[in-house]
Amino acid sequence: MGNNAIVGQSGGPTSVINASLVGVFQAAQSRGAKRVYGMLNGIQGLFEERYVDLSEAITSTLQIELLKRTPSSYLGSCRYKLPEPEKDEAAYQKLFKLFKKLDIGYLFYIGGNDSMDTIQKLSRYAKTIGSDIRMIGVPKTIDNDLAVTDHTPGYGSAAKYIAATVKEVIRDGLVYNQRNVTIIEIMGRNAGWLTAAAALAEGEDCEGIDMICLPENVFDVDLFLERVDEAQKERKSVVVAVSEGVKLADGRYVCELADNAEFIDAFGHRNLSGTSRYLANQAAIRLGCKTRAIEFSTLQRCAGHITSRVDITEAFQVGGAAVKAAFELKTGCMVTLKRLSDDPYQVTTGLVEIEQVANKERKIPQQWQTKDKTGVKKDFINYVRPLIQAELTPFYVEGLPRHIHL
Amino acid sequence: MGNNAIVGQSGGPTSVINASLVGVFQAAQSRGAKRVYGMLNGIQGLFEERYVDLSEAITSTLQIELLKRTPSSYLGSCRYKLPEPEKDEAAYQKLFKLFKKLDIGYLFYIGGNDSMDTIQKLSRYAKTIGSDIRMIGVPKTIDNDLAVTDHTPGYGSAAKYIAATVKEVIRDGLVYNQRNVTIIEIMGRNAGWLTAAAALAEGEDCEGIDMICLPENVFDVDLFLERVDEAQKERKSVVVAVSEGVKLADGRYVCELADNAEFIDAFGHRNLSGTSRYLANQAAIRLGCKTRAIEFSTLQRCAGHITSRVDITEAFQVGGAAVKAAFELKTGCMVTLKRLSDDPYQVTTGLVEIEQVANKERKIPQQWQTKDKTGVKKDFINYVRPLIQAELTPFYVEGLPRHIHL
Repeated sequence: MGNNAIVGQSGGPTSVINASLVGVFQAAQSRGAKRVYGMLNGIQGLFEERYVDLSEAITSTLQIELLKRTPSSYLGSCRYKLPEPEKDEAAYQKLFKLFKKLDIGYLFYIGGNDSMDTIQKLSRYAKTIGSDIRMIGVPKTIDNDLAVTDHTPGYGSAAKYIAATVKEVIRDGLVYNQRNVTIIEIMGRNAGWLTAAAALAEGEDCEGIDMICLPENVFDVDLFLERVDEAQKERKSVVVAVSEGVKLADGRYVCELADNAEFIDAFGHRNLSGTSRYLANQAAIRLGCKTRAIEFSTLQRCAGHITSRVDITEAFQVGGAAVKAAFELKTGCMVTLKRLSDDPYQVTTGLVEIEQVANKERKIPQQWQTKDKTGVKKDFINYVRPLIQAELTPFYVEGLPRHIHL
Repeated sequence: MGNNAIVGQSGGPTSVINASLVGVFQAAQSRGAKRVYGMLNGIQGLFEERYVDLSEAITSTLQIELLKRTPSSYLGSCRYKLPEPEKDEAAYQKLFKLFKKLDIGYLFYIGGNDSMDTIQKLSRYAKTIGSDIRMIGVPKTIDNDLAVTDHTPGYGSAAKYIAATVKEVIRDGLVYNQRNVTIIEIMGRNAGWLTAAAALAEGEDCEGIDMICLPENVFDVDLFLERVDEAQKERKSVVVAVSEGVKLADGRYVCELADNAEFIDAFGHRNLSGTSRYLANQAAIRLGCKTRAIEFSTLQRCAGHITSRVDITEAFQVGGAAVKAAFELKTGCMVTLKRLSDDPYQVTTGLVEIEQVANKERKIPQQWQTKDKTGVKKDFINYVRPLIQAELTPFYVEGLPRHIHL
């Protein structure tokens, strides 16, 4: 069995993804891995033999603490889908040759449902050739759409950013004594977990948002504008959270109604944006009031200056749990988070066969939504509130959060 | 002379505008004002006799601290331009009748260059009718475009938000090993102070942005795309900061090239947005790479969760200095900030005749820009760096910054 470990980061970045890297790195070192390599730009980079020796790159506890506070993937990421091993063995032969050269015994891949596809294929191929490399997936995605796990590291911090910013936008919208509509566009192609987090803004000091539009439900532009109009009878300043992924009954994305250049990534995902701008324009025309479109864009996945300490801690823990599993000879699995209780909030880690999570999406349960599908119920708030608790203060140097990079 | 004070907030909000309110409120109380009233929605609200007695609304030191941490105008704001006193005396008669009823001796107005127009007209009218109400302007604007004063409260925190977020966006843009262009749109109609603050991102841990496009200079779309193309030969991920107010040689805003609903506010300002989207689309078409448009939108003026302590402290100080001036029988003036030195950074407050600042705009000096107008020089960095220093930690309650509202 190989003596070294290798770890990669894949898919969209988060503000806490490097805490998982730290978790893997430290646990692998303490469990006796001689070297811990990092793939540069995930599995895709390995095809060009692009990797670093993390044991040489990360040598101080200050670096470790900076890593926890640095958003976006330290090792770089990729959106690369491995071919089916049965169809293109050459790719795998190349990778496993490199694994042999690097004396790899353990492979960890930090990512979402697309990235778990990589673990699935690699471990499947390993089995067919009798390789004993242990391969474990480490969950990460702001989208929170991974199956089986209670939630995913990255989500809590994105939810915290969204809720905090929505609170600020609500305050801002109330500043003038005039009718206005603000439409906030939040990430999430098919699952509305991030958009729903906007509901957290409501509290003793904030009236909250007026409507939430999730991609789980069919979107109707006319009904939407009617509801905004209705909401504005109650308060002059209306704030609505809309998922970038909302679709019409005919299956088209709302953003397709707008006039936009399109981009399709390696996984076949469209670049969705412009939903809020389209709806804000429609509201301006039909309701005759001031409107504003705000896209949180990549800010929601890279806002390292406001993260959830619960999230960072769990991101670190799943990294460590992955290493533990691998050293206990598990393979072809992903680490999960299992919630023991909401209040007091308690979680533990678990393991799941990779087949149960790869390429699968988990959506918001219907019973957590209000009947008219314009909001979420207390059950959802109870679910998400613990995930945004506590903070990890950035290291401010000369007035700005300090990061670390390769 | 009246025994009471009244204070209003006007124009666009900032994340620290309430620190100036606290400054006025506490100084007026300690100097003996019997009551301190707050205009609701500025001078416009007074026409409908909408005001509060702050002496009753703010009674605890916890409220004071929450106010300093609450973005957007606590009292509400307006974008209202008073008529010329010579043309419409009735408006003034109404206001001064209310001032008499409320026994007002001191009036403070927190705002930018448009708002200082209000102080100018009110004090001019007061002189003509022999009123002894002291009227002092308190500077506030994220735009930093007020004349005479070294800088304006609100700018430092917005600059800190911009620089911190730009750093994060740069990290995010580097995550995939592919060519991409991110165009960040930053507020500022005619003055590029906010956009230039993106230059602060550069440092030991960040390569900084590739180009800054200020509204002070004529914008050429073709030249812009050429430069982006050139920059991309050096690095795959290019990040550019563009002011919402960039204009073509023929005077049209770049955002007018895009297809957008338009909105013109009470001061005749157009709602400028869509510049980054237009440029990102052009870059996608002409350079054939992935592009992204990010608008900081109102987030840059309401991000109370990341503020500059220097800025908050100065916002508080200008409020106090305004009260001091009024009690020393000054009127028709605005408080200024005077820089004594860059390093160590030292400022003091001053006073300026309101005529010198009302309706005037201060732009970035040409000598602070690079020769090709795509960046700023060290002089600018030396100017702005002190303004983003230190933090005022939000009061996090249940995971989110706590605010206060009326």
